[in-house]
Amino acid sequence: MQDVLTEWDAHSRDLRARVARFILAEPTQRVIIGLILANAVTLGLETAPSIMARWGGLLVALDTLFLVLFTVEICLRIFAFRGRFFRDPWGLFDFAVVAIAWLPATGPLSVLRALRVLRILRLVSMLPRLRIVVEAMLHAIPGIGAVALLLVIVYYVCAVIATKLFGPSHPQFFGTIGESMYSLFQIMTLESWSMGIVRPVMEASPQAWLFFVPFILITTFVVLNLFIGIIVESIQTLRKQHDEAEEARDAALAAATSAARAEHHADAETILGELRALRAEVAGLKAALART
Amino acid sequence: MQDVLTEWDAHSRDLRARVARFILAEPTQRVIIGLILANAVTLGLETAPSIMARWGGLLVALDTLFLVLFTVEICLRIFAFRGRFFRDPWGLFDFAVVAIAWLPATGPLSVLRALRVLRILRLVSMLPRLRIVVEAMLHAIPGIGAVALLLVIVYYVCAVIATKLFGPSHPQFFGTIGESMYSLFQIMTLESWSMGIVRPVMEASPQAWLFFVPFILITTFVVLNLFIGIIVESIQTLRKQHDEAEEARDAALAAATSAARAEHHADAETILGELRALRAEVAGLKAALART
Amino acid sequence: MQDVLTEWDAHSRDLRARVARFILAEPTQRVIIGLILANAVTLGLETAPSIMARWGGLLVALDTLFLVLFTVEICLRIFAFRGRFFRDPWGLFDFAVVAIAWLPATGPLSVLRALRVLRILRLVSMLPRLRIVVEAMLHAIPGIGAVALLLVIVYYVCAVIATKLFGPSHPQFFGTIGESMYSLFQIMTLESWSMGIVRPVMEASPQAWLFFVPFILITTFVVLNLFIGIIVESIQTLRKQHDEAEEARDAALAAATSAARAEHHADAETILGELRALRAEVAGLKAALART
Amino acid sequence: MQDVLTEWDAHSRDLRARVARFILAEPTQRVIIGLILANAVTLGLETAPSIMARWGGLLVALDTLFLVLFTVEICLRIFAFRGRFFRDPWGLFDFAVVAIAWLPATGPLSVLRALRVLRILRLVSMLPRLRIVVEAMLHAIPGIGAVALLLVIVYYVCAVIATKLFGPSHPQFFGTIGESMYSLFQIMTLESWSMGIVRPVMEASPQAWLFFVPFILITTFVVLNLFIGIIVESIQTLRKQHDEAEEARDAALAAATSAARAEHHADAETILGELRALRAEVAGLKAALART
Repeated sequence: MQDVLTEWDAHSRDLRARVARFILAEPTQRVIIGLILANAVTLGLETAPSIMARWGGLLVALDTLFLVLFTVEICLRIFAFRGRFFRDPWGLFDFAVVAIAWLPATGPLSVLRALRVLRILRLVSMLPRLRIVVEAMLHAIPGIGAVALLLVIVYYVCAVIATKLFGPSHPQFFGTIGESMYSLFQIMTLESWSMGIVRPVMEASPQAWLFFVPFILITTFVVLNLFIGIIVESIQTLRKQHDEAEEARDAALAAATSAARAEHHADAETILGELRALRAEVAGLKAALART
Repeated sequence: MQDVLTEWDAHSRDLRARVARFILAEPTQRVIIGLILANAVTLGLETAPSIMARWGGLLVALDTLFLVLFTVEICLRIFAFRGRFFRDPWGLFDFAVVAIAWLPATGPLSVLRALRVLRILRLVSMLPRLRIVVEAMLHAIPGIGAVALLLVIVYYVCAVIATKLFGPSHPQFFGTIGESMYSLFQIMTLESWSMGIVRPVMEASPQAWLFFVPFILITTFVVLNLFIGIIVESIQTLRKQHDEAEEARDAALAAATSAARAEHHADAETILGELRALRAEVAGLKAALART
Repeated sequence: MQDVLTEWDAHSRDLRARVARFILAEPTQRVIIGLILANAVTLGLETAPSIMARWGGLLVALDTLFLVLFTVEICLRIFAFRGRFFRDPWGLFDFAVVAIAWLPATGPLSVLRALRVLRILRLVSMLPRLRIVVEAMLHAIPGIGAVALLLVIVYYVCAVIATKLFGPSHPQFFGTIGESMYSLFQIMTLESWSMGIVRPVMEASPQAWLFFVPFILITTFVVLNLFIGIIVESIQTLRKQHDEAEEARDAALAAATSAARAEHHADAETILGELRALRAEVAGLKAALART
Repeated sequence: MQDVLTEWDAHSRDLRARVARFILAEPTQRVIIGLILANAVTLGLETAPSIMARWGGLLVALDTLFLVLFTVEICLRIFAFRGRFFRDPWGLFDFAVVAIAWLPATGPLSVLRALRVLRILRLVSMLPRLRIVVEAMLHAIPGIGAVALLLVIVYYVCAVIATKLFGPSHPQFFGTIGESMYSLFQIMTLESWSMGIVRPVMEASPQAWLFFVPFILITTFVVLNLFIGIIVESIQTLRKQHDEAEEARDAALAAATSAARAEHHADAETILGELRALRAEVAGLKAALART
């Protein structure tokens, strides 16, 4: 969280800087991590009906207390960092997982109550090591974008074909494009693809394996390429650092060679200058001799 | 799509070149990608009976319109590039997925109606990044050809053995070689191999695991080698580029060393020449002195 | 097992050293490995009721004999190496798997009787090659610690959400956080995730796939990153050795270049010195000539 | 097939060499490959009862003919190469798959009839590319030997524990050590591990997941390390070749630097020699001058 601001804030004198210093201080961070862990425990306990029956009131009260504390923390950070808070993706993430808990979770939105648990994920944004891991993983995604797009196109085409061919006979698997995409995802994960889906489908359309076996082979091959892409990407990142070190060594050697060359040439020039002066003197000597 | 021809065509003046320029122009390409995406939507909507009941006529009309437009585009490209259109694999691919839609799809060929959706795959041939990804994947296939052939031989042998051993007791899995190959493929993907197939088979032939467990171990090991082949191939391709850069650096260093060596030798030669001239002059001086 | 002590012990003269030499001697080690293998056989035979009915007494007697022998061996090693025995993780491991067998295995602790079999694992601590393999594997774990922690957090959050959302309708899968974690682990291994869990759940909550499909994608991606981390770690270890060799070669080349440079400069200095002496002599000659 | 003998045989004159030349000749090899492929077809056709009913006699006759031809070929090769035939693993392989067909396949050995199909695998020993692939795969096995041994020990220990703990309640899965090993293998492949085995077992022993979940994690981790071992081995083999090329380049550069150094020193020596001669002459001049 905005660690880079610490130095700037340390020199500033106003309230904003003091709040920033307070929020970023080691003890404050530890207290917040402690609160998140405690909240993780209460949120877990809330799922047990027997505990809720006896301690429900206390747990709900604690949960509200945690939420208020997190909200105060987020407000302090917004006050201290203003625009920069929202430009930092981790700031947005913290804001979102706390904000979800303030949305009304009644009626059709009751699912939001379950999403309140997402605030435990703030542990990831609070622990630098985890943030680095998540950033490294997200970093790998653009490199596989083209392969993922290819997979989406193949999926859509296969879902339309499967809906047309097998939808009438097996609407529970291929009734709509959405159901087909779900079933094809299940087939791609190889879960019950044959016993659960393809063998029943083959009873109606005996040639169905001509569609499903190539689908499995192609998607497995594409996903494999996606994995290989990430592995090769990681290895290439490693190699870049290694290559830079090697290039630096090679450049140092080339510079040393070039400096030696210049030095030798300078030496040769000095020797030549000396020689020419000598020759001039010998010539002068000869002239003097001729005069005598 | 024949990008390499653009330059040649730009200098040419006849109709053929103008058509080529038109087809390869950025705006035309964007319109075609837009048409493919629109067609993907209409093909998707056609699978929903409720939408077909209300808008069926419109969707079918739109689909025919798209098909006519794609056909016109392919015809223009064939006119512009003639033989080269068919020598380009992507040209053949575009031709095939559009041509499928013109085949009569009645009676036993009604499955072809579903294959019309394949024309959405033209997105792959229209987007250079996807074409590169697909070409890279296909590039990996020859390297694994021998392993794939080995897998096919192992498959065939195991299918014949399984049909002979387990066909009589479990015809639904191993009745014919075709069914055996399908079941062995299912077993290789590990889907319900034990609960669905091998445990029932072991009730009739208690030693069946002596066939199936080695089959799983061997095919998994071979497929693993297939994957490793692709990974190592990818790493080797990377390394080649890296090695070329390194060799270039080494060659530059060797050239610099050799140039320095030549320069030093030239310097030494200059000095020696100067010295010899000086010595000649001193000798002349000596002679002159001797004469006095 | 404390091989490093052998040398020290060879020079020592007291009883402790003699015991250490005896325990670490090649023949003793072979006898212990033989005893472990024999005990593995008797422990295996004990699981067959028909064999236990006939030879039960003998097997139990043999097992007790093996246990006594192992205990004597551990005691001798503790006597010989004292504190160092417990500081060595493999020493602790040997101690633990033998000690388990002496715990009372009655009533609620009857499960401990089954854990007596763990003493066969002492084969791993007795065979150096296996110890190296296990140490290499354990070595890879710290590198994946952050990813594993991330996985645990994601698991806990998803388990709480799943318990809240799907617990009421499917208590057999998501009744408590513990059951949810088990079910999510099963889903992550892709075992019957769709047919067994998600499809039944979707009958009650049709949007359930919005939770489970991202869960599968995220956990698979995280586990993949965990694997890639280990692969890249292994490759990096290899590369380090390789880089050190390369840097040594580069340093040798740089030293040779630098030595050549110093030598050339010394040559040039010698030549210059010679030249200056010559010039002085010519000047002297000139002066002598002027005097005549 | 003993290609290395060809040259030796070409120079030899006796019958043995002529037979060897005949067997190893390109056309003979092609005919044998053709016979194996034809036999693969007839063996496949034999599995279809409808075809056997009409053409059974012909197929059996053809099969016998193929077998006789293969036997003649093997006999010729044994005659030509004698001991060397049996020292070559591929020779032994060819001998074994042909010999199996001559064993009586009646009564309890009727399973041998199915193994006759193994002779199709001779395709692998006849096609050099496939032989290379198989040899490369077998080459990877020693490197993973220690990990495989570790896996076997873990398996045995877990099978004994599972038989003791879960055998009484679920004899169909864990009744004997053999059945436990099979079930654990199924669990390691993740096939129906939860729905099919662990959930039913947990009804009797609710804590069973404490055994099975760690078992899955440990065996998956060990198998992963087995795979990584093969990948790293392959990469290391590649790197070795690459390193040798690099070391050669570095050595060439060092030699060039050293040669340049020697040459420069020789140049400097020549110059110095010249200078000293000049100085001597000037000294002579001075002396001559003094004499005048």
